[in-house]
Amino acid sequence: MKKTFVRRLKDLSLESPILVEGLPGVGHVGKLVAEHLIEELKAEKIIEIYSPHFPPQVLVQSDGTVRQVRNEIYAYKGADGEPDLLILVGDYQSATNEGHYELTGIFLDIAEEFGVRRIYTLGGYGTGQFVEPQVIGATNRSELVEEMKSLGVVFHENEPGGGIIGVSGLLVGLGGLRGIDAVCLMGTTSGYLVDPKSAHAVLKVLCKAIGIEVRTQALEERAAEMERIVSKLQEMERAQVPYESGGEEDLRYIG
Amino acid sequence: MKKTFVRRLKDLSLESPILVEGLPGVGHVGKLVAEHLIEELKAEKIIEIYSPHFPPQVLVQSDGTVRQVRNEIYAYKGADGEPDLLILVGDYQSATNEGHYELTGIFLDIAEEFGVRRIYTLGGYGTGQFVEPQVIGATNRSELVEEMKSLGVVFHENEPGGGIIGVSGLLVGLGGLRGIDAVCLMGTTSGYLVDPKSAHAVLKVLCKAIGIEVRTQALEERAAEMERIVSKLQEMERAQVPYESGGEEDLRYIG
Amino acid sequence: MKKTFVRRLKDLSLESPILVEGLPGVGHVGKLVAEHLIEELKAEKIIEIYSPHFPPQVLVQSDGTVRQVRNEIYAYKGADGEPDLLILVGDYQSATNEGHYELTGIFLDIAEEFGVRRIYTLGGYGTGQFVEPQVIGATNRSELVEEMKSLGVVFHENEPGGGIIGVSGLLVGLGGLRGIDAVCLMGTTSGYLVDPKSAHAVLKVLCKAIGIEVRTQALEERAAEMERIVSKLQEMERAQVPYESGGEEDLRYIG
Amino acid sequence: MKKTFVRRLKDLSLESPILVEGLPGVGHVGKLVAEHLIEELKAEKIIEIYSPHFPPQVLVQSDGTVRQVRNEIYAYKGADGEPDLLILVGDYQSATNEGHYELTGIFLDIAEEFGVRRIYTLGGYGTGQFVEPQVIGATNRSELVEEMKSLGVVFHENEPGGGIIGVSGLLVGLGGLRGIDAVCLMGTTSGYLVDPKSAHAVLKVLCKAIGIEVRTQALEERAAEMERIVSKLQEMERAQVPYESGGEEDLRYIG
Repeated sequence: MKKTFVRRLKDLSLESPILVEGLPGVGHVGKLVAEHLIEELKAEKIIEIYSPHFPPQVLVQSDGTVRQVRNEIYAYKGADGEPDLLILVGDYQSATNEGHYELTGIFLDIAEEFGVRRIYTLGGYGTGQFVEPQVIGATNRSELVEEMKSLGVVFHENEPGGGIIGVSGLLVGLGGLRGIDAVCLMGTTSGYLVDPKSAHAVLKVLCKAIGIEVRTQALEERAAEMERIVSKLQEMERAQVPYESGGEEDLRYIG
Repeated sequence: MKKTFVRRLKDLSLESPILVEGLPGVGHVGKLVAEHLIEELKAEKIIEIYSPHFPPQVLVQSDGTVRQVRNEIYAYKGADGEPDLLILVGDYQSATNEGHYELTGIFLDIAEEFGVRRIYTLGGYGTGQFVEPQVIGATNRSELVEEMKSLGVVFHENEPGGGIIGVSGLLVGLGGLRGIDAVCLMGTTSGYLVDPKSAHAVLKVLCKAIGIEVRTQALEERAAEMERIVSKLQEMERAQVPYESGGEEDLRYIG
Repeated sequence: MKKTFVRRLKDLSLESPILVEGLPGVGHVGKLVAEHLIEELKAEKIIEIYSPHFPPQVLVQSDGTVRQVRNEIYAYKGADGEPDLLILVGDYQSATNEGHYELTGIFLDIAEEFGVRRIYTLGGYGTGQFVEPQVIGATNRSELVEEMKSLGVVFHENEPGGGIIGVSGLLVGLGGLRGIDAVCLMGTTSGYLVDPKSAHAVLKVLCKAIGIEVRTQALEERAAEMERIVSKLQEMERAQVPYESGGEEDLRYIG
Repeated sequence: MKKTFVRRLKDLSLESPILVEGLPGVGHVGKLVAEHLIEELKAEKIIEIYSPHFPPQVLVQSDGTVRQVRNEIYAYKGADGEPDLLILVGDYQSATNEGHYELTGIFLDIAEEFGVRRIYTLGGYGTGQFVEPQVIGATNRSELVEEMKSLGVVFHENEPGGGIIGVSGLLVGLGGLRGIDAVCLMGTTSGYLVDPKSAHAVLKVLCKAIGIEVRTQALEERAAEMERIVSKLQEMERAQVPYESGGEEDLRYIG
């Protein structure tokens, strides 16, 4: 296996679907949202992508069998005016720079093949602070900025300052070069922990944007649980460094 | 030499052989077992594999000549109801991620060419503790889990937690994608030292699994010798850090 | 996208143009000069270059839209006896060694296609000292050394001692192998800060060399501002380490 | 330039030449010997090799011009019963593992094209000690071991223990796979400094081995000068650490 290999599991025809990407990244925000969608919508896996750009690894599952690390695309046929969806998730992003470009190219080929009309890439934006999550946006066409603002998405000038790295950025950037509308939605998050609360915020915006409703209970429960952990951490922090602490929300040294 | 190069030394026909892989890894457990098998069975080298993914290196042999680092495949024609075997050993695994995928692909091509009916990959599973070795398993089909359990192989839920990295993992994962049954047998080992005792445990399970008997004396002697070294190390450890030591078996700081 | 992709925006015919390269590097000297030229000459973008050798990243612009990181070539049709110009700028240089070679090859292909008669590559030469900038030169033909000396360019024997790394070096070296005259102009700079003053020095030499006049006010203003920052830093330095400081111009520890 | 590029400067016919390799490495021993040979024999450059596996760099020469980093092959037509020679030198070895394999393959292609009858690769073997240099050998055929021993070359069992890394190793290893006799001659050296004394020792053995005589004065003078530097370093060492020094020859901490 010298090349990335796209394994088709099922032939399916979708109507101008929307592609939602949620690969692992900061706070696993995108991954949490995309996996939640797959579960709630009972989306069906139609494609697996194996690549020498992923770590050379298998994961051991609960029944003692293994599976090769991969990315996966799920399909959802919308009911009652809902749009059709393709949802891209996976164990890893590419381990190499070049791999990010190659895999994004493959994802865009698949998007074009299905006639995808818009891409939403989901991620976290690490701020180093434990605060209420906002949803920050970036798009590849200025009209989309206005549309997203009307849904409560925040646009800070030139932010994120470091740009957007990985597939979430490249799908928007390289997608634009192919004339595909794309929006990146980033939930602000501390960057230290898996963040279901930030994921919940992103999910709400995404659902409004694409016109789909899903239950959010599972994500809210995980968020509540994580809240308790964070409170505990902050208490410990206060106890340990009563004078030096730069602020109660600042946990920069836990990471 | 820009590409991996497979050098055929001998043309041989085998009957649905079993492929046993024992390349270098944690505690050199797999390598010890595979080399022991080759020696005891007097298996014959039939293939050498050279690759730009190996370190750019030659090894100096005892007679002053060198040999290019490589992987090797040995063949054994089973006698009296024994199965035929292919045994994969070598100096190194790939030095790059991509190389692991490419080489595993080449190994699987060879396996298919010989009509391999099952693959056993052998390795060590580092626990940080000097304890009696167990043999942990992982397979690419759930029926194989049951079969292995009946031979005393242990399956812990989702363990190894970090997955299985390198050729031992990929042969099982990518082998599964090609429809080849594969089992990974991992001897638990401290991870600090070459571990013939763990290799001995793996060898016993493997021989039962494939229906072959070999003498194990050489391995047992090396294991006994290593036991003495470990006892010595543990004594030194006790002498040095009488109060701080987290436990007598814990030699985490020797590495 | 597995390969570098050259996107032509406009078809234009130029007369034996001069290619000026100013990609990011030490003190961003070359980039400052090239971008200043583009602005003052109102040069027109004709080519964008996207490559998997660039970081896998998009940049977020002030209006909330993103753009894929890239290199760009601008064209300027000279008026009144001025030469035609191609100006190469960009967000990044290649992130890999091999990429530097590949991209330089592509730039030289474009240079040959336009019949480029000479290349000027611009950069900074870090000295660790805050002093008046000099312009150091290197060429791929000895006649060019004399020509540059007559314009005030300084040539120190075998300097820079470490050679010239990246596209600024390769365009001169590989350009020479294709028979294209090329000169590298390096403004000395501390190496710690973006250096518009050094850029101003390089710009003056470049304009004389290619026979073009541009206003330099914008660059001078930025240089004056940077002067103030450097003075401030030096004051702080003096205040902090009154005895140990190796010299007033030495700010090696700020970087 | 995506690929290694072999630039032929002169067409020449040689009679079963011997290939001598002296690329940069430990103590620059091989490089010193090969460059000395080129100078003394007035060998003529016939081939330049440029590669994206070398650092992306040009070197600045004393006259202000640059040259692209490269490897070079010189030819010498032997007089009076001397053998013809090809001498391989260069600024760098490959910066990547894969590049070492690719370049060695290209060198061997050239060797086969010229009908090379034997390869001598030259290098240093770092011992961490300042002692009289020995010449250690390794070959790709056991008959060559005997031949080399008769010339005073030393063979220690399984030494160097870490094998031989880089082109000096691969030419012997991969050369053997192509049926070309090859010998690696390594001068022992501290590993801390360029070592003309070790180079002198290797040169003497090489000249005997290939049946060529060259003046060695230049190398001896450099060796004498380096002796003085080493003595000075050892004196300083003694002065600084009168009690702790592990031995007078041991300068492990100077590096």
